Amino acid sequence: MNPETFSFTLLGKDPSGARRGRFSTPHGVVETPIFMPVGTAAAMKAMTMEQLKDTGAQIMLSNTYHLQNQPGADLVEKMGGLHQFMGWDGPVLTDSGGFQVFSLPGKIVDDDGVTFQYQKNNEPFRLTPEISIQIQNQLGADIIMAFDECVEYPATYDYTKKSLKRTLDWAARCKKAHRKEGQALFGISQGALFEDLRKESILALVDIGFPGYAMGGLSVGEGIDNMKRVLEFTTPWIPEDKPRYVMGIGLPEDMFAAVERGVDMMDCIIPTKYARSATLFTNVGKLRVSNREFRSDKFPVDTNCQCYTCRTFSRAYLNHLFAGNEILGSILTSIHNVHFYLDLMRRIREAIEEKRFIAFRDEFLDLYTRRDKRQKGRRRKSQKG
Amino acid sequence: MNPETFSFTLLGKDPSGARRGRFSTPHGVVETPIFMPVGTAAAMKAMTMEQLKDTGAQIMLSNTYHLQNQPGADLVEKMGGLHQFMGWDGPVLTDSGGFQVFSLPGKIVDDDGVTFQYQKNNEPFRLTPEISIQIQNQLGADIIMAFDECVEYPATYDYTKKSLKRTLDWAARCKKAHRKEGQALFGISQGALFEDLRKESILALVDIGFPGYAMGGLSVGEGIDNMKRVLEFTTPWIPEDKPRYVMGIGLPEDMFAAVERGVDMMDCIIPTKYARSATLFTNVGKLRVSNREFRSDKFPVDTNCQCYTCRTFSRAYLNHLFAGNEILGSILTSIHNVHFYLDLMRRIREAIEEKRFIAFRDEFLDLYTRRDKRQKGRRRKSQKG
Repeated sequence: MNPETFSFTLLGKDPSGARRGRFSTPHGVVETPIFMPVGTAAAMKAMTMEQLKDTGAQIMLSNTYHLQNQPGADLVEKMGGLHQFMGWDGPVLTDSGGFQVFSLPGKIVDDDGVTFQYQKNNEPFRLTPEISIQIQNQLGADIIMAFDECVEYPATYDYTKKSLKRTLDWAARCKKAHRKEGQALFGISQGALFEDLRKESILALVDIGFPGYAMGGLSVGEGIDNMKRVLEFTTPWIPEDKPRYVMGIGLPEDMFAAVERGVDMMDCIIPTKYARSATLFTNVGKLRVSNREFRSDKFPVDTNCQCYTCRTFSRAYLNHLFAGNEILGSILTSIHNVHFYLDLMRRIREAIEEKRFIAFRDEFLDLYTRRDKRQKGRRRKSQKG
Repeated sequence: MNPETFSFTLLGKDPSGARRGRFSTPHGVVETPIFMPVGTAAAMKAMTMEQLKDTGAQIMLSNTYHLQNQPGADLVEKMGGLHQFMGWDGPVLTDSGGFQVFSLPGKIVDDDGVTFQYQKNNEPFRLTPEISIQIQNQLGADIIMAFDECVEYPATYDYTKKSLKRTLDWAARCKKAHRKEGQALFGISQGALFEDLRKESILALVDIGFPGYAMGGLSVGEGIDNMKRVLEFTTPWIPEDKPRYVMGIGLPEDMFAAVERGVDMMDCIIPTKYARSATLFTNVGKLRVSNREFRSDKFPVDTNCQCYTCRTFSRAYLNHLFAGNEILGSILTSIHNVHFYLDLMRRIREAIEEKRFIAFRDEFLDLYTRRDKRQKGRRRKSQKG
């Protein structure tokens, strides 16, 4: 890989350990820490790329597993690659398919790769490190990911150890297979919740050498405390001058926990998925706008939010759209949620620059969880009463 | 009504009879002839109001029948009226509910009004001229419509005559009931396909006196030739200095037929409805982008179109979105179709100004129908062969 096509700079650190950084790609510069919205099938769900840009998105993520199924990497390549195909000229990251394939029932795993079936037809499809890299080369994202085995939660030590060996072999094969310029290949660490395996995996990946390191196998049901623990004993082994990416994270509270532990990059489908079921993120907690209480609520979703939805519409209007099953409901809530996530990351970056990350975290989470706490308090009281 | 809040100016005519005009409303000026996109429930289907504005929309339409059902006129009024509620600051027209109510099974019609049931609950609801006007006053559109009986096709002369008497009584009652300033109430003519009844209806409406006149009871299955005939013997009786609105029209060929016969305003759900089933309007005819032939088609939907969809995406990408049931598919096709309709009307206005409407019509329809003609020719040939 041409070293000029990807570079990461650590700009500074907060006393907590939170990092402020920047990476550059052939399609632009990304300020970190960053949340990456997910457009699984080369499309944001219920948003155009213009609207995604308006939310402040710097980079977005798309999925190898889904794109190989439909429309296929050959077609995307023929159409000029992912950026041109989906009308997004900013940086793109593709995952390797590992996460999706290993959650399929009926998959057959061997040391060379995985055989599985796509739902649309009954023909077996095979993913190996080499095939995943080839597909990602064809798709043409700025950052591509190694093909790994994402171990399910909970996993035994023995299985995790065996699986890790395979993942590390595959990481080396991915690096060997990746010959296309202009794409940065990141390694993915595994090791479930086991400290020695996590350390082993990072050290082995660093030995192979990648321009960035991801932590996989999290956000699979282990809970926030386990996640925090894994990040705490994993990130110290990643070289300071490389970006750290925790995959599939998460809720706002998870993002604070990850940033505090030195993570630079995150992605998740939560903002758009929750949006389509009318659940909105605000500074005072989550709000389900389809609930009856919002039927005649004149206020915007979040009074302090500058997104198109909050600048223009009341909660009552969004409530009306969900009551009538209007597609516009999902469009407007998706715009808000993605904007909220990206704006939260912007505020996090600002707080790190001003070395007040922990104060900002406490301030944000206090307000964000206050209503939930009050409701829990009330419930406890009424159970006693 | 304050006469300053609505005014129409006939700017000129083409030798064919096509009219170029302009009307002004409290929310802005509209150049005619105009196509009005329909946002039934105070929402465009699969488009934001920002996107609607970008397509060049000057005015949009919403439906009394649907809005009274959900969220109710009281709520819309409380939220500041339709414009503020739905985030559209341009002119709005609401229909009266007549068209929808009369197509319901189980409705009970008497000379005072109609009783029917909304699907969401089983309570009877009653619409009378006075109630329809009151609801439309509460909604607060710039142009509101008289409550009429839309006669089904085909209708007998006797039934149509009897129904027309009722519609005319109701028109007078609507005018009497309408006391709110800033809203122009249009009359609606009925009379099915009967020349004397259409004439009678217009003359009676003119006698009552309205700032604009609509022709209802068309686009109900009568076919384009019957529609042309009705427009030909109806529009001459409408005063030249008032706008003429044919309701529920239509396909591009219908719009040309209506404009040629002196119509100034049209509305229809076709562009957005067709869009959601992947059918796109182009200068060379309709195209169903979900068809297999477009799977790897690098071209935009319409090479000459300047909409966001055509500037950014290939037919292959749209084909991919529909294959994956992505909401974005409907968003992008809706943007294109509405833009196409509005741009076609812009070109029609230009042609009228340059007194070459018929030449433009022939040129457009020749190209637009060529592929269909060729396919029909081929089919005929293969049937013979």
